Amino acid sequence: MSQFLQALPQQVTVFEVGPRDGLQNEAALIPSTAKIAFVNELADAGLKWIEATSFVHPKAVPQLADAGDVMAGIDRRPGVRYPVLVPNERGMERALETGVDAVCVFTAASEEFSQANVRATIDETFERFAPVVALAHAHDIWVRGYVSMAFHCPYEGRIAPEKAVEVSARLLDLGVNEVAISDTVGLATPLDMDAVLALAADQLPVEKLALHLHDTFDLALPNVMLGLEAGITVFDGAAGGLGGCPFAPGAPGNLATEKLVRLLDGLGIETGIDGDKVAAAAERIRAAMQ
Amino acid sequence: MSQFLQALPQQVTVFEVGPRDGLQNEAALIPSTAKIAFVNELADAGLKWIEATSFVHPKAVPQLADAGDVMAGIDRRPGVRYPVLVPNERGMERALETGVDAVCVFTAASEEFSQANVRATIDETFERFAPVVALAHAHDIWVRGYVSMAFHCPYEGRIAPEKAVEVSARLLDLGVNEVAISDTVGLATPLDMDAVLALAADQLPVEKLALHLHDTFDLALPNVMLGLEAGITVFDGAAGGLGGCPFAPGAPGNLATEKLVRLLDGLGIETGIDGDKVAAAAERIRAAMQ
Repeated sequence: MSQFLQALPQQVTVFEVGPRDGLQNEAALIPSTAKIAFVNELADAGLKWIEATSFVHPKAVPQLADAGDVMAGIDRRPGVRYPVLVPNERGMERALETGVDAVCVFTAASEEFSQANVRATIDETFERFAPVVALAHAHDIWVRGYVSMAFHCPYEGRIAPEKAVEVSARLLDLGVNEVAISDTVGLATPLDMDAVLALAADQLPVEKLALHLHDTFDLALPNVMLGLEAGITVFDGAAGGLGGCPFAPGAPGNLATEKLVRLLDGLGIETGIDGDKVAAAAERIRAAMQ
Repeated sequence: MSQFLQALPQQVTVFEVGPRDGLQNEAALIPSTAKIAFVNELADAGLKWIEATSFVHPKAVPQLADAGDVMAGIDRRPGVRYPVLVPNERGMERALETGVDAVCVFTAASEEFSQANVRATIDETFERFAPVVALAHAHDIWVRGYVSMAFHCPYEGRIAPEKAVEVSARLLDLGVNEVAISDTVGLATPLDMDAVLALAADQLPVEKLALHLHDTFDLALPNVMLGLEAGITVFDGAAGGLGGCPFAPGAPGNLATEKLVRLLDGLGIETGIDGDKVAAAAERIRAAMQ
């Protein structure tokens, strides 16, 4: 048997980001009821981690301005976690009102992207979410930190692996439970992936790392394979590959959850997820966008 | 660095099957001049092995009835080989008239598929192409043998790895230079791939093996990675993923050459191929199908 296959984990966690990362850039306004049904159908499909919405300012992401309604409307299944994105203390207060049990904060490994995306330096993003993490700890809430543009950036080009690992370490020092190292634009090659993973293996606890991959150039699955080899057991997916550019229908955005599940199934790794049901849920939410 | 990456070959050969496997099922009749330009553009893109056409009976594959014209029309670049598919002695005689320097014969690991596809048992396919291989040897012509449905078959279901390896061994015994183990329907999972590769490593010379993969369920690249790990250095691709079902535009058929090249580039493996030029050539031949 292949050396690679022999070293694989038996189980992997798929972290679904479709309802948040998948929908946030959609131009068509989607009814809250459709979003609620989407989240519930993803739980039906066997997903145990579903990033349900975002408490960023409604003006920044109008599509997710109904975050409170969505959180109030979804079923809270036993054994399923529904993390939400939270940008700052104000967002955290709104999220707390809905009884969240997991939150996600975000920063980047690229200064220029951080400033373009949230008009804040990387240092300033830490200042913004330090109180979020403190509140989370006070309420016994699980926290994930995203490191966007951990490999390449549209502004800065290739990101030094040292920078990606440094920002990840800083998040862990702050007390987040998990860091999602993110190839936000899908430009990471397997060699880029390896450079970050090799450094991460030296300096970070691999059991606290997740990979968030986009599939722009079809290299997400090969990169998942390198992640698995490096001992990572949490991978993000968005049902139907939602999150592509709204002006290029069918263009790959996030790694599609059902595609990720097909790979993991094909490697003999348990996920507990029915990929066909995930794909069907994505088709229904797409229909609700018309 | 990843154990997987450390064991990779420095160079890989990409065997282009677009002009033959990619076009043979296209309903729209494509002018010979467009096919000739396609082959020449693929050579411009750096491909060194281009399966240019097929000398099957014109009634069986009307699309490639102009095989003689195509072979007469293409440039024969130094260092580039232009293998053609040949089903039997009569086809070989036609091919020889055009001055071919490489031919491909085909059989299957599935009895039912063989009978449905060419109305012959596997044994009978060997009887048909034994004289082809003899003629090839007499003319110092390189020979590849395809083993279709080496993993799964639409009729028989999963194929025993022993059967795929047995048919491959039989081709090598007959004196073919290379065996292309083929996932003709794109149903092979990485575990299926591993089962065949592990047995092949025991019983066959890996340097004479190629993998011919379809990308129906997005697992072609993961399977290429397992092939690389097993020591295989020849992989097939079809420019633009040509060869999908003609009634499902955009449905994946053959593994797209440019996608394969992106993976190999991303792994730091030399191919000498410009994937963008391959994709552009595919776009032009697609336009000629309208």
